[in-house]
Amino acid sequence: MGLGVGLIGSGYMGKCHALAWTSVATVFPDVHRPRLVALADATSELALQQAQAFGFSRGTGDWRDLISDPAIDVVSIAAPNQFHAEMAIAALESGKHVWCEKPMATSLEDSTRMLDAARRSGRTAILGYNYIQNPMIRHARTLIAEGKIGIVNHIRLEMDEDYMADPAEPFYWKSEQRSGYGALDDFAVHPLSLLSVLHGRITSVVADMAKPYSERPTRDGGRRTVENHDIAQALFRTDTAASGVLMVNRSAWGRKGRISLQIFGSKGSILFDQERMNELQIFSTNDPTNLQGYRTILSAPDHTPYRQFIPAPGHGLGFNELKVIECYELLQAISGSRGAHVIDFERGLEIERVVHAMAQSAQDGKWVDV
Amino acid sequence: MGLGVGLIGSGYMGKCHALAWTSVATVFPDVHRPRLVALADATSELALQQAQAFGFSRGTGDWRDLISDPAIDVVSIAAPNQFHAEMAIAALESGKHVWCEKPMATSLEDSTRMLDAARRSGRTAILGYNYIQNPMIRHARTLIAEGKIGIVNHIRLEMDEDYMADPAEPFYWKSEQRSGYGALDDFAVHPLSLLSVLHGRITSVVADMAKPYSERPTRDGGRRTVENHDIAQALFRTDTAASGVLMVNRSAWGRKGRISLQIFGSKGSILFDQERMNELQIFSTNDPTNLQGYRTILSAPDHTPYRQFIPAPGHGLGFNELKVIECYELLQAISGSRGAHVIDFERGLEIERVVHAMAQSAQDGKWVDV
Amino acid sequence: MGLGVGLIGSGYMGKCHALAWTSVATVFPDVHRPRLVALADATSELALQQAQAFGFSRGTGDWRDLISDPAIDVVSIAAPNQFHAEMAIAALESGKHVWCEKPMATSLEDSTRMLDAARRSGRTAILGYNYIQNPMIRHARTLIAEGKIGIVNHIRLEMDEDYMADPAEPFYWKSEQRSGYGALDDFAVHPLSLLSVLHGRITSVVADMAKPYSERPTRDGGRRTVENHDIAQALFRTDTAASGVLMVNRSAWGRKGRISLQIFGSKGSILFDQERMNELQIFSTNDPTNLQGYRTILSAPDHTPYRQFIPAPGHGLGFNELKVIECYELLQAISGSRGAHVIDFERGLEIERVVHAMAQSAQDGKWVDV
Amino acid sequence: MGLGVGLIGSGYMGKCHALAWTSVATVFPDVHRPRLVALADATSELALQQAQAFGFSRGTGDWRDLISDPAIDVVSIAAPNQFHAEMAIAALESGKHVWCEKPMATSLEDSTRMLDAARRSGRTAILGYNYIQNPMIRHARTLIAEGKIGIVNHIRLEMDEDYMADPAEPFYWKSEQRSGYGALDDFAVHPLSLLSVLHGRITSVVADMAKPYSERPTRDGGRRTVENHDIAQALFRTDTAASGVLMVNRSAWGRKGRISLQIFGSKGSILFDQERMNELQIFSTNDPTNLQGYRTILSAPDHTPYRQFIPAPGHGLGFNELKVIECYELLQAISGSRGAHVIDFERGLEIERVVHAMAQSAQDGKWVDV
Repeated sequence: MGLGVGLIGSGYMGKCHALAWTSVATVFPDVHRPRLVALADATSELALQQAQAFGFSRGTGDWRDLISDPAIDVVSIAAPNQFHAEMAIAALESGKHVWCEKPMATSLEDSTRMLDAARRSGRTAILGYNYIQNPMIRHARTLIAEGKIGIVNHIRLEMDEDYMADPAEPFYWKSEQRSGYGALDDFAVHPLSLLSVLHGRITSVVADMAKPYSERPTRDGGRRTVENHDIAQALFRTDTAASGVLMVNRSAWGRKGRISLQIFGSKGSILFDQERMNELQIFSTNDPTNLQGYRTILSAPDHTPYRQFIPAPGHGLGFNELKVIECYELLQAISGSRGAHVIDFERGLEIERVVHAMAQSAQDGKWVDV
Repeated sequence: MGLGVGLIGSGYMGKCHALAWTSVATVFPDVHRPRLVALADATSELALQQAQAFGFSRGTGDWRDLISDPAIDVVSIAAPNQFHAEMAIAALESGKHVWCEKPMATSLEDSTRMLDAARRSGRTAILGYNYIQNPMIRHARTLIAEGKIGIVNHIRLEMDEDYMADPAEPFYWKSEQRSGYGALDDFAVHPLSLLSVLHGRITSVVADMAKPYSERPTRDGGRRTVENHDIAQALFRTDTAASGVLMVNRSAWGRKGRISLQIFGSKGSILFDQERMNELQIFSTNDPTNLQGYRTILSAPDHTPYRQFIPAPGHGLGFNELKVIECYELLQAISGSRGAHVIDFERGLEIERVVHAMAQSAQDGKWVDV
Repeated sequence: MGLGVGLIGSGYMGKCHALAWTSVATVFPDVHRPRLVALADATSELALQQAQAFGFSRGTGDWRDLISDPAIDVVSIAAPNQFHAEMAIAALESGKHVWCEKPMATSLEDSTRMLDAARRSGRTAILGYNYIQNPMIRHARTLIAEGKIGIVNHIRLEMDEDYMADPAEPFYWKSEQRSGYGALDDFAVHPLSLLSVLHGRITSVVADMAKPYSERPTRDGGRRTVENHDIAQALFRTDTAASGVLMVNRSAWGRKGRISLQIFGSKGSILFDQERMNELQIFSTNDPTNLQGYRTILSAPDHTPYRQFIPAPGHGLGFNELKVIECYELLQAISGSRGAHVIDFERGLEIERVVHAMAQSAQDGKWVDV
Repeated sequence: MGLGVGLIGSGYMGKCHALAWTSVATVFPDVHRPRLVALADATSELALQQAQAFGFSRGTGDWRDLISDPAIDVVSIAAPNQFHAEMAIAALESGKHVWCEKPMATSLEDSTRMLDAARRSGRTAILGYNYIQNPMIRHARTLIAEGKIGIVNHIRLEMDEDYMADPAEPFYWKSEQRSGYGALDDFAVHPLSLLSVLHGRITSVVADMAKPYSERPTRDGGRRTVENHDIAQALFRTDTAASGVLMVNRSAWGRKGRISLQIFGSKGSILFDQERMNELQIFSTNDPTNLQGYRTILSAPDHTPYRQFIPAPGHGLGFNELKVIECYELLQAISGSRGAHVIDFERGLEIERVVHAMAQSAQDGKWVDV
């Protein structure tokens, strides 16, 4: 019989988790169908409605009900960021496995406490860095590991969207200081999670953060100062002596879900853009000179685990399906597989440290070691 | 309570149906969660195993068990093409709704009988033309209907894959005459289904069919003559006086899931390629002259029903999710919605007629009226 | 000392010829700088002005002056199509070499007479099919000839622009019957010239021609019936047993200089689009399975004769530079090189025959042998 | 009568200048055909040969012959970088106009002396930043100036090639310290020249430089330490309060002539890549919401001065033709036109200052004001 699942939060990412829990056993034949035990949300009314919509047996307005429910083995945390630490630690201390959305927490202290709790519990605790689950990213990882582009020496990472690009958009909580640095923790963690699985660790950074709009209209007709930064960029070095650049911008008109990677090595290079998530580009000096050029590889059954979804190549996976793969990898990790392809709390904390180092560099105007 | 579902067939498309039935209520809040009653496959052993994997309550080696089960309201038919007619007619005559994979049947006679059965039954009967469910295709339909590209006057349709492209691939049933014309009924029906929802009806055709390889190796070391055509192309005219070209090729090295549309009108044009299914290109003379050019629209919440899957733009749907939308539209049709976006048996038969006219033209070497 | 050049016509293509004659010796070190002797145009006034602008020693209102000038060795014909035959034949009969813009002439009879004159004269006579001079097309020819995509079995050719796409554009001579078939001879000859150097000969065709707008406004406020066809398409077979499709449209909104080739073989395929004339795409089954995909080769010094223009790869040639290459190849042909990469009058006549066969098929509604 | 021209250097860029001087009057009707007076190169033998090839009246092994020749009005300097200052200053002091290839010189001191000489002389002195001449760049400038993307707030600039990417490539002068910083002065000046005409001035930078290969093989079988940096990146701020990133890499496998611009504003964004130099992409919030997306504008007669080359849109200019335009703009500047689109020595020095500030920042590890 499958694991018992509790889900906290039923918004954007909560629904995504629900879809993953619902689909994972249909997609992956070696998975026992999870039992959707309970869903928690802000009010019991909302929770009940969403539990019914998503196929959970019951709903509750108190997330602690899930923690204490012995029928629940694993807790999905898709609640607002400021609650991640408290929920994850409570769940782990109750012996639950934890699947927590990113970012890990809103402070390094909380993230560290979460990692401690995970270690003490002996339970599986992972973060929702779903972009690493893209079969094309995993293919890139294999190609890099096999030396197909030689020794990596330069990396460029970009993540851009435009949901904050309109200066007429009224001030809301995203622009408050207590929401964090802005683009740096909203976005930077994603390309950093990709880097984490693809190549090396960042050891030093120099960063800058910028505000495209220093103030925004308020709903009552006034103006309010924007407290964090929609744009950030950093130069970095890795433990493999590669140099690189990270750029994030949540006010980038025209960009909708761009996560662009450019990875250069001594024998070739690899390009990827999440807006065309079913494509991977590689340039290889192994090709005959007169045939060299970037080739576009389309996602296909050869690229694990695409085949579980579709047996034909080039038909395309979607964003939500990355979460289904993540769910599968979580189940692999819970069952003790060492090869599970996840960002656990340990790697998650490493990513957080890089983000905080960048923020500090932006403040101090000089290089900072991670 | 949701409808009771029976699924016949659990291969490629059967799994796709199972995923759709599993996910549809999670994605669409206005849907009652369907009950997965029974799954039928070639043997009861296989059926039991797949029923468990896909979350159906029971499995059976006899598809007629599903037809007679009063707990089942709707039957998904994802069995081999030659059984479509028998199964669909039986289901309809038992008062079930039918969701039948394409192609409708292996002969015009069978297709006609299916339509007759559907009409007699008063039940909903639709075909699995999932590509029409792409939000970008529906957006294209809206743009065309609104006159954004003016009066359509020229159309080019292509569908190409390469699963038959290797001449060393041994002869198998796909190359037998009894499997049909080849690329014409494997592929042509897909772009024709898109045309069916986008613009006009084909009224006359002149076609050609070709064999890239006249024979193939057999597994016992011999050679066998290929009996149908991996390549087909046709010129056509529509009832709206547009001219067009249809091209299909299942031996097209490099193409994996290409369905390319080029639709030209008096005020602009629209381009689409299923290999980049989250993009739609439009050229409009409404743009200022010095800003004219094809723009690439990324799939977004504005494009119905993308928002049900993801509230953020540009994140991308996958092939399988088109089936979830199709399932939703089927449920809309069953509940009596007139606006359901489906290819019912009536429109399906029209598509079949075009395919058969093309085959006849290829044989006779002259224009044929549909 | 270089050859003496006479140029007839100083419009769009005349200027292009002038640029080629001016640049060819600077680009190609093995060429003797041509002497720009005389330019002829409709009036002596215009001719004098253009002669000065383009660096010709003298200008004349009578093109026959060039024919009789012993200082002139080669005549560039960039005059309206209806004069091609008369001018080319006169030039050849006077012992001049001829570089004639396409199309060859306005009737098969004239084209045939031109070929006869060329044969009798023993002089070099070529047509201005400059697209074949693109280093990427020549690279494609090499790759196909080397078997890189195996045995070619399917071809799709498209040429589209939008200069006739606006229905409000007043009727002008391009829409008169005496200007020819329309898109068929305006455009079809170009992709056919590419096919001529890349692979095989067309042996039979079935074609259709269409009018997006049956009449157009006149400048005096009336309406006039359009007499030829802005759109044409044809299915074809080649002497190599390949099947194919040719599509041309001069009313295709959004297309500016598109000439798209798709060439499929038993081991790969090649794609090209003139709108991105410095790129060639190839898919090859020689690549390892998990690295297969279309690769984009950028024009580079390896692709003859790109190096003569730029020693660095990826910097890009332009449309006008194709004419410089054509001029060089003409000079090669004149100097007796057998390998000159040109469309001479013999191959030019073959192309014309295909066009006329298509027009006849469009009229008769059945297959026509070329 | 046209200006008398002297050309120093007949290699890669010397040939490019020669082509420009030869073609400029044919392309632009308002230009008097320049007289190609003399060409200087390292030896008189080479100079004579190249003078003949390029159509110059005479050749000389001593560049000072050109400076003293009263028949020469303007001197093209395409000699090695270390000679730029001496030659330019000598030419200016003799009353010649100067067209000097980039980079301006090999030290800030020399660049400053060049600017002083230019000011004293009252002659026109420009640098060979030909990428700014691309009609698409000029179109971008117009669109930005017209406010089509609103207030610019973020900029990303990349320039990458791979001519130093092979670690097996033997050590040569490009890797010596006396050749300069490496990628920073080889490449950075190009995107900086584009920024100079498009938007704002850089006021502060923090930079990093990296060596993908710390040593290279020598031709005698040994190894030699690489003395400068093939990779450089910098964060910057502009006088318009925009933030930005500059990235250059001459060891970037797969990149051939990439110069990528991403310019974001409060109402849209603009993208450009020199490898597709005939395309410009713009995203505009002026478009209706359901039609928003990046549109690709193809180069066309509307984009000055494309029309002078080709009257039809989408046919494409090449890299060499940018030099022809630059030559025309130089002539405009010489004739006193205030609107000439050139990088004169004053703006050239500004660019040099940014490069040197980046180099210093890379050394000091902190922000540097320009």
